[in-house]
Amino acid sequence: MNIEIINIGDELLIGQVVNTNASFMAQELNKVGFNIIRISTIADNAKDIELCVKEGLQHSDCVLITGGLGPTKDDITKYTLAKIFESEMIEDQNVLANVQKIFSHRGYELTPTNRLQAQVPKKCKVIENLVGTAPGMCFETNGKLVISMPGVPFEMKEMMTKHIIPLLLSFYKPSAIFHKTILTQGIGESFLSDILEDFEQNLPKHIHLAYLPQANLLRLRLSAQGENHNQVKEELEAQINKLMPLINDYFIGFDENDLSRVVAKLLEQKGKTLSTVESCTGGNIAHAITLNAGSSQYFKGTIVAYCNQVKEDVLEVEAKSIEDFGAVSKEVAQQMALGGIKKLKTDYCISATGIAGPTGGTDQKPIGTIWIAVANSKREVQAQQFNFFSSRENFINRATNQAFAMLLKWIKEGK
Amino acid sequence: MNIEIINIGDELLIGQVVNTNASFMAQELNKVGFNIIRISTIADNAKDIELCVKEGLQHSDCVLITGGLGPTKDDITKYTLAKIFESEMIEDQNVLANVQKIFSHRGYELTPTNRLQAQVPKKCKVIENLVGTAPGMCFETNGKLVISMPGVPFEMKEMMTKHIIPLLLSFYKPSAIFHKTILTQGIGESFLSDILEDFEQNLPKHIHLAYLPQANLLRLRLSAQGENHNQVKEELEAQINKLMPLINDYFIGFDENDLSRVVAKLLEQKGKTLSTVESCTGGNIAHAITLNAGSSQYFKGTIVAYCNQVKEDVLEVEAKSIEDFGAVSKEVAQQMALGGIKKLKTDYCISATGIAGPTGGTDQKPIGTIWIAVANSKREVQAQQFNFFSSRENFINRATNQAFAMLLKWIKEGK
Repeated sequence: MNIEIINIGDELLIGQVVNTNASFMAQELNKVGFNIIRISTIADNAKDIELCVKEGLQHSDCVLITGGLGPTKDDITKYTLAKIFESEMIEDQNVLANVQKIFSHRGYELTPTNRLQAQVPKKCKVIENLVGTAPGMCFETNGKLVISMPGVPFEMKEMMTKHIIPLLLSFYKPSAIFHKTILTQGIGESFLSDILEDFEQNLPKHIHLAYLPQANLLRLRLSAQGENHNQVKEELEAQINKLMPLINDYFIGFDENDLSRVVAKLLEQKGKTLSTVESCTGGNIAHAITLNAGSSQYFKGTIVAYCNQVKEDVLEVEAKSIEDFGAVSKEVAQQMALGGIKKLKTDYCISATGIAGPTGGTDQKPIGTIWIAVANSKREVQAQQFNFFSSRENFINRATNQAFAMLLKWIKEGK
Repeated sequence: MNIEIINIGDELLIGQVVNTNASFMAQELNKVGFNIIRISTIADNAKDIELCVKEGLQHSDCVLITGGLGPTKDDITKYTLAKIFESEMIEDQNVLANVQKIFSHRGYELTPTNRLQAQVPKKCKVIENLVGTAPGMCFETNGKLVISMPGVPFEMKEMMTKHIIPLLLSFYKPSAIFHKTILTQGIGESFLSDILEDFEQNLPKHIHLAYLPQANLLRLRLSAQGENHNQVKEELEAQINKLMPLINDYFIGFDENDLSRVVAKLLEQKGKTLSTVESCTGGNIAHAITLNAGSSQYFKGTIVAYCNQVKEDVLEVEAKSIEDFGAVSKEVAQQMALGGIKKLKTDYCISATGIAGPTGGTDQKPIGTIWIAVANSKREVQAQQFNFFSSRENFINRATNQAFAMLLKWIKEGK
């Protein structure tokens, strides 16, 4: 069962926008056992769209399309699909109601241009868009599906996970596939692959191990595919049992893509609260935690002390410590974490102070140097130094994950 | 002069790696006037590569390929190209010398597997790789070029800018192309397109307007293409001059993809400082600002007051205001912004308090409700209410951009 993805959008072809839709879709489809054979990016151009859809139907069993569904003149995907499938356009009353609801919610009146969003080809099955005005459309032709969805990433994501994956599963009934993702931290890909060499060589052919590195994290994904649902599931479990003792030192959790979710779950479970005090990470640790729905249960607040004055005034870090040891030091990291405990009144506080670059490094403290500390309400505190020399964004992401990993270790040790 | 890009690599098709090579290549090619008509991503599979290259030669004047040039068994691009162009493989002595140099540099001995990197199809023109072992290859067929380069991003980038762009310019002599991007805020795509209807209809055929929406932002891109370099440039400028009065109310800046960069530039220019006080945005406004290198010049700190206790204790928001009006209210947003000015000692402070969802909404204050306030060191303060009903992540991104837009307006008004 082969799928071709077509991403439509001029902005992709001039390189203004990186095509993250394709990787999200490929990941989600891969998880449930579909094979992507080609991803094509083309312009908002009727001739190209028609050619690409027709070629896609030749190469593969299913064509998934994103983009070109806005209400403006440059968006022509649905009219082109109507032409390909020889269908007239009609106004769909459910879509119209949804568009009206969204506009009244935002306090706007519906203009004739926006009302065009409710126009769909008569021959398609309409797919609901709960978070935007452009509906999805599904066409069936010679036992193959062609599905069009919005290019706005969060609309596409919502539609993919809620509607399109279930629709594809019921239509194509792919062979049974199970994945188990294991989150590890504290070891690089090549070192872990040395440790797992024998394990990997002894895996049966239908079970596959993938290494998925992220900023300062390494996810392992074990996938098993086959005809018999229960058998495949059991075989995967058996391999996981073999794998676990080998990676014990680096194991963080199962099936969580994001370390902040592991932290969130553990805090919820234990009924503990967290705050952060951030310098070089500039609020990203707090941002990562608060992306999780329900985070107000365990997350109380943050002080981003980007300048020394805030470190001293708000967090009561000693001016002398900053002078003697520098703002990027064990002493300051520890005082920041303890200051957070005092001011924000939580069970745990994480702090980070470092040099993100691209300037500001010295011989003693080169760019990438960072101190991360964890403190608790008993005023115990522990700090550790790292170097995450990298791009600014990657530095911040690696620091964020390292901070979560240190906190997890602490909580697990009963601190 | 149309180009098709083919990116080869299994990791791209399972969504493990985001295809940033494509956007880099598209940007570079676009700048010098080449038109990308398609970007195809395919697996390391001989049949798919052959089909995709042949289709590419049908659609376009030139095919640029990345990936599949490593020394291991799964890399088959050059052998497949040799087959397509009916060429035998030979060992290229210059490439061999380069591979040997690189290996001795790294302190490794050359293995037979690595020596295979010096094998190239006899019919190609070899393109030097100064930073890696895999050479580029250029084939000419019926007046069209097919060029293969490594998939490792920094090797590809080096080869593109140093060798391939000059080669394409001398071979194809493309038409002139210019783009201008305009950042707008405060108006939706469909409303702006209504305003610009006449302007758009009167554009000459070789000038094109595109709408590129982002969370709560709308970029407009005007592109002009033609034979005469100076004439195209002048025509584009003339259209920009016509466009500007129409969008004046929503204009933010030129050629900036990111609102935080516009804010950063303006603060730097004016020598002013900023802090943020965040509730529902959880530190994201601070994170967006501090992603910019050099942000410590103008950004001082943040207090994320996720719970009411922190609002009261650290920011001195009145408990009575929270009780009377609720944490998501004009009064609390204003007190938060003023609290930030007092505690973090900056010229400006932005605050945000709202209901990100998916739970926590009421009839009076549904999910998506948010108050954003801006304050200055004269203790002037202004708050505004919005509704950004959406996914949690999108709510946060929209709120962040709205906060920046409010601040920009304030600074521009001389507050």
